[in-house]
Amino acid sequence: MRISELSAVSGVSTPTIKFYLREGLLHAGERTSATQAVYDETHVHRLRLIRVLREVGELSVDAIRDVLVAVDAETGTVHQMLEAASRALGKTLPSGGGEGGADPRVESVIASRGWVVGPDAPGRAHLASALRALDRLGAPVGEETLAYYADTADHVAAVELSFIDGTASRSGIVEQVVVGTVVFEQVLVAMRRLAEEHHSALRFG
Amino acid sequence: MRISELSAVSGVSTPTIKFYLREGLLHAGERTSATQAVYDETHVHRLRLIRVLREVGELSVDAIRDVLVAVDAETGTVHQMLEAASRALGKTLPSGGGEGGADPRVESVIASRGWVVGPDAPGRAHLASALRALDRLGAPVGEETLAYYADTADHVAAVELSFIDGTASRSGIVEQVVVGTVVFEQVLVAMRRLAEEHHSALRFG
Repeated sequence: MRISELSAVSGVSTPTIKFYLREGLLHAGERTSATQAVYDETHVHRLRLIRVLREVGELSVDAIRDVLVAVDAETGTVHQMLEAASRALGKTLPSGGGEGGADPRVESVIASRGWVVGPDAPGRAHLASALRALDRLGAPVGEETLAYYADTADHVAAVELSFIDGTASRSGIVEQVVVGTVVFEQVLVAMRRLAEEHHSALRFG
Repeated sequence: MRISELSAVSGVSTPTIKFYLREGLLHAGERTSATQAVYDETHVHRLRLIRVLREVGELSVDAIRDVLVAVDAETGTVHQMLEAASRALGKTLPSGGGEGGADPRVESVIASRGWVVGPDAPGRAHLASALRALDRLGAPVGEETLAYYADTADHVAAVELSFIDGTASRSGIVEQVVVGTVVFEQVLVAMRRLAEEHHSALRFG
């Protein structure tokens, strides 16, 4: 298909498609002349993935590029590809004011659950900054509360990983995990906001 | 205390404090001369709350103003104050490309759980846009999966609301709920990212 059709099918404007081509986010079409190229289903699919990362995940172009490099990696294990994707996705997490550094409560949660996560996993600094925000407000989180969230997250992640089709290609697996991380995070966040409004109404309505 | 001390105690720079005063996010100090004012613990507390909304919640100044108006409301029930705060907090949710509108799956989840949520609850459009992103990717969410997230969110919200100190002042209650919505959302997101990395390692490591 021509670029105009690709735009119509994917819902991404032609100038934006040209931008993604220049930025290397989208692979080139097959040249049919000096000024024209044709595109296929792989381009439609990639544009839809980019749209999800941009619109649902609110990732920057640089972060999207890093995610796609991880999805397309031709060397390394699936686990290494997933780790690279997770690092790229972590760039969107709020830094909490940049007060980085380890927090013993985070390390304790990870150790007590036996979670195997890299020392540079973005969730570590992200969790630490949320805990420090509560400290500053004079409402430090209790150990039991933290354990409750860890148990809940552990269950959610186990269920989510069980949905991944392990017979897919390496790229297909990484793409499924990336989409799951980004989109189901928003599903969970939205559901919690809805449920909070309900339980607020129950308690204070 | 003087503005320089307020800055030191709160960790917010003096120019930023002056900006918040001009923008009406922070109440004025007590004037001691034409050019000087003194501040107290209420200013320290408010600055810490603003910092959490800005750094952890990544709210815009306009959204923070709306949240604080809800926290400070002198009329209306606590529930009305909470609804106003929830609408203001909803401004930060990714719009998913602006394709708004109701989605029957969202309405069905809300109805089946008996959740009492306003027609303009930001979580509705937010959830709908996440579901439509999955549709576009050719991976529409199943009913059971959606039910799993709804059950999880319902449990999390019930637990969170049970932590709210109902003997606090009206403003105190609303502030607790706002902080809980913003900060524990990030706690949950960070924990899920960590747990996902672990379960990815288990399955593909």
